[in-house]
Amino acid sequence: MKISAIALGAGAMLAASPALARDHVLLDAGKAPANQTITSKSLGVKSATPFTVTTKTLHGGRQEGVMLVEIDTGAMKITVVPTRGMNVLQAVAGDVRLGWHSPVKEVVNPSFIELTGRNGLGWLEGFNELVTRCGYEWVGHPGKDTDGTLLTLHGLAANIPASKVVLSVDEKPPYTIRLKGLLREQAFKKVDYVIETELNTVPGATAFTVHDKLTNQGDYPKEYQALYHSNFGAPLLEKDAKFAAPVREVSPFNDYAKQDLATWQTYRGPTSGYDETVYNVFPYGDADGNTLAVLHNAAGQLGVSLAFNVNQLPAFSLWKNTDTEKQGYVTGLEPGTSFSYNRKYQRDLKLVPTIGPKESREFQITYTLLDSKAKVDAALKRVETIQDGRKTTVRETPLAVPKPE
Amino acid sequence: MKISAIALGAGAMLAASPALARDHVLLDAGKAPANQTITSKSLGVKSATPFTVTTKTLHGGRQEGVMLVEIDTGAMKITVVPTRGMNVLQAVAGDVRLGWHSPVKEVVNPSFIELTGRNGLGWLEGFNELVTRCGYEWVGHPGKDTDGTLLTLHGLAANIPASKVVLSVDEKPPYTIRLKGLLREQAFKKVDYVIETELNTVPGATAFTVHDKLTNQGDYPKEYQALYHSNFGAPLLEKDAKFAAPVREVSPFNDYAKQDLATWQTYRGPTSGYDETVYNVFPYGDADGNTLAVLHNAAGQLGVSLAFNVNQLPAFSLWKNTDTEKQGYVTGLEPGTSFSYNRKYQRDLKLVPTIGPKESREFQITYTLLDSKAKVDAALKRVETIQDGRKTTVRETPLAVPKPE
Amino acid sequence: MKISAIALGAGAMLAASPALARDHVLLDAGKAPANQTITSKSLGVKSATPFTVTTKTLHGGRQEGVMLVEIDTGAMKITVVPTRGMNVLQAVAGDVRLGWHSPVKEVVNPSFIELTGRNGLGWLEGFNELVTRCGYEWVGHPGKDTDGTLLTLHGLAANIPASKVVLSVDEKPPYTIRLKGLLREQAFKKVDYVIETELNTVPGATAFTVHDKLTNQGDYPKEYQALYHSNFGAPLLEKDAKFAAPVREVSPFNDYAKQDLATWQTYRGPTSGYDETVYNVFPYGDADGNTLAVLHNAAGQLGVSLAFNVNQLPAFSLWKNTDTEKQGYVTGLEPGTSFSYNRKYQRDLKLVPTIGPKESREFQITYTLLDSKAKVDAALKRVETIQDGRKTTVRETPLAVPKPE
Repeated sequence: MKISAIALGAGAMLAASPALARDHVLLDAGKAPANQTITSKSLGVKSATPFTVTTKTLHGGRQEGVMLVEIDTGAMKITVVPTRGMNVLQAVAGDVRLGWHSPVKEVVNPSFIELTGRNGLGWLEGFNELVTRCGYEWVGHPGKDTDGTLLTLHGLAANIPASKVVLSVDEKPPYTIRLKGLLREQAFKKVDYVIETELNTVPGATAFTVHDKLTNQGDYPKEYQALYHSNFGAPLLEKDAKFAAPVREVSPFNDYAKQDLATWQTYRGPTSGYDETVYNVFPYGDADGNTLAVLHNAAGQLGVSLAFNVNQLPAFSLWKNTDTEKQGYVTGLEPGTSFSYNRKYQRDLKLVPTIGPKESREFQITYTLLDSKAKVDAALKRVETIQDGRKTTVRETPLAVPKPE
Repeated sequence: MKISAIALGAGAMLAASPALARDHVLLDAGKAPANQTITSKSLGVKSATPFTVTTKTLHGGRQEGVMLVEIDTGAMKITVVPTRGMNVLQAVAGDVRLGWHSPVKEVVNPSFIELTGRNGLGWLEGFNELVTRCGYEWVGHPGKDTDGTLLTLHGLAANIPASKVVLSVDEKPPYTIRLKGLLREQAFKKVDYVIETELNTVPGATAFTVHDKLTNQGDYPKEYQALYHSNFGAPLLEKDAKFAAPVREVSPFNDYAKQDLATWQTYRGPTSGYDETVYNVFPYGDADGNTLAVLHNAAGQLGVSLAFNVNQLPAFSLWKNTDTEKQGYVTGLEPGTSFSYNRKYQRDLKLVPTIGPKESREFQITYTLLDSKAKVDAALKRVETIQDGRKTTVRETPLAVPKPE
Repeated sequence: MKISAIALGAGAMLAASPALARDHVLLDAGKAPANQTITSKSLGVKSATPFTVTTKTLHGGRQEGVMLVEIDTGAMKITVVPTRGMNVLQAVAGDVRLGWHSPVKEVVNPSFIELTGRNGLGWLEGFNELVTRCGYEWVGHPGKDTDGTLLTLHGLAANIPASKVVLSVDEKPPYTIRLKGLLREQAFKKVDYVIETELNTVPGATAFTVHDKLTNQGDYPKEYQALYHSNFGAPLLEKDAKFAAPVREVSPFNDYAKQDLATWQTYRGPTSGYDETVYNVFPYGDADGNTLAVLHNAAGQLGVSLAFNVNQLPAFSLWKNTDTEKQGYVTGLEPGTSFSYNRKYQRDLKLVPTIGPKESREFQITYTLLDSKAKVDAALKRVETIQDGRKTTVRETPLAVPKPE
């Protein structure tokens, strides 16, 4: 349905043209990042809740030149970082901030990151987002792949700046706001992936969807892996906060995680010396593969849900980094094609899928703020419905035992 | 000969000053890259064919901040990338494009490249040019040098941004257009090279010359290597396209290349699973060392020639990457001081020359489009004249056999 | 004492406001680097000697985007590089330049440096300053730490761009000029250091003080190391130039340095093939730990002194790189917490201190130009006073003997 220029009045005639009301290029080869503000009004969009999209460029330190796009739905301010793989820095609704507090305080421009640094842990010098894309050639811990090549932590995606960023607003209700960013993960002889990322939301929403399409543009089938490192600190995370999902199998990532296996769905408060425990989860989906993971606070009246599909993202890592506040008190809910072992350990687990020439894979996750007991309860009910009484296997031993390098 | 202000008319009086008609600084310490257009008219140059030089800066993705300079001779548009070692991205004459289609679609800013990545193959994340400078400390495959230092693929030059870029147009016919760029390859204790690069052409030409001067500014003799990775895809490259040069010796780069040794001068069409074969060639030169390498299509009416001097560039690699289109169907004609083995394997071959303190070495290659059967035939005739009936040695075994690392 | 607007006259009323007369933000997240000139007059500062602070951004080559701040005290022009860890590039007083001539001619933007390159010697591609910060996680030669992690040469600090740069001028005499820059050395799980750097000087001075405060923002104690690589070439350094300090113990850094141990305080002229000798010095301090290191020319009428405190910086490296001019004829006077061995060799020497959670460490060095025989003599006298007849131990063997990797 086209927006009627007449209905919108004379002032909206220009805005009613598809070029303005639909695609608004924020960045591309010929368009430099610029500080700007776009509003539902300036776009001529008649949504019940006005919304605003703001772009800005950061300066100083390792964040020199970093572009941010903030989508204010009217109820939630979602900040996306085109310069860092279209990662989602944070989403703030009132006094609730989805995100966490990393020791990394800047939004780091990949031009200052050496992924090979720290023996392949250089990625940690930029890690501080709510949603960090991991992939798409590989994910997982650094180490030498079978052929001897050093794979750096969690792949390149989070450190690839988006080539083209477009704001696109649907012309009909609910006037979905789409922020699209194109990532190119390309190396002669090695890989020719493009990832068409999209973050969408609607005016007035306290939820958003990440919808990515990975395409192998090459002529050969290639291995790929994806993992959406979705990270939450306080106020959702706290002592006795809980995780829920329909679980087919859970196992400790390593020997250290065995210790808390009995209570793997409950969180500790900030705990000195805890470091992290990780649990490898295979969730159940419903008949269509749809599933839901929920994190909520101790009182059960504040939480977040991640809705995704196990046919797209069958492996789910629960990363419990309940160390001290300043060390980064955080949990990661990480739907993926794979777990966080180095790629070489995941082939035997059948968690290194391939993508054929010209084929695409889609990954979709909807993040929803649960800001009342009713909403948390409804989400937990949905988890139970998907579980549908099916058995949860608790595997006592890790799926893989990496050797020291 | 000074251009006469009177002859050019009043409007050209300003242009007739040396500052405008001769050196036009496009980039230096005090001058930021800027989008601009310079024409023969604006320079007051009275060439029969008008020409245009355009600079622009790319944005988005890994090409953020990359500067391009396009010289449109009136007959060919030659694009140079100051940010990437003054490499030549492409040269387009009518519907013929000299260059190739790499999976790497962006013109990648070296600030986003980790050469040490992918075990020293990080260079491949930016490789997509018509002419890519390799050198000057080393060229060749990645691997540990004799002293244990990891040498990354093909050296640093292609990922060194030019410090100063000057457009200089000769004041007298043929009004040669010179684009000069200074590269600094410098590291305390290690190297103090400056490379004064020049790409020159003339109004109306479908040819250009790369003319570089490497100077060792240091007080010690140093090893150096140079290789001009000159890359061509369709329409020159196709099934039954041919390579010709006056050849003193040819040998397969490795065991894999032995298979096609009998037909090393003929190309396959795009071939799935082919990867690449490489042939190490020592060309003959004429009495002055001048030689010519020719690539032409199957019909022999479209081609390119590279004129260079074997005293400057004695080793020539023929890189036949006739894999599929999307994998990068391309051949490299690569005049060099050296072949593409890791430096440690080339010392015994006497292909790691040294350059004394304050000494310079010049490298000059003229690239000429051959856009008719007559031009191709003339070039092949020239090859034959240089060969002059001298014997070609076909060596069956590779010159070096690198060990796996 | 507030500057009186009345005393300064109407024109100074604005300048008398704290915002202008005190803190002047030159760079932060919301403020891009810009070319500007700030003068004592524009600030409304009534210093006897007018001063000027100039900022500019460099372009081209590997220095694209580098910010410089030059403080001209009226008697000395001090150039600071915010983009490179607030390093001091040079200090020029009349025809005397404190600094040196490295083969590295550009002021290199860290975005173009791979510290892991050249087996961890990538740092050398940017090294050319008068004062280069080394640290703060580690200093020293590259190599694998005890846990196998490659530590690159001299740590990250010199290649961390300052996040926030503020010019602050005291409102009362001597109207101290302070250039403050915040460095963030942060990596999730690894380190959470902030370094509040300050360079201060006064109008008319030919001296400046570097005053840094390192804070461990994390919740765990961490190892740290600091070393202020302070480098001088001609005209201070020349044949028979001398070094003086109150010395408790001196030893050769390695076997090679044994050769010149007898004359370790005297310099050679430029010497082909010399490379470098390094001496590890433990200076004496006075009752408060204050000490002084002096470098002066052969005639003893031109020199520099470094005043620091051995409680902050107990280990002092004397780096004698008296190789040829073009190789970089230079000596480093390097007060530090540590010497230049890889960190793993310094733990046994008790030269890898730790810093507790929320703790800070301060490092302060005053660099003073000695531009007369009287000033040199006074400095030498001060050295003698601190030595106070105490014994100097000359240790013949190196403190550590690193193994080849």
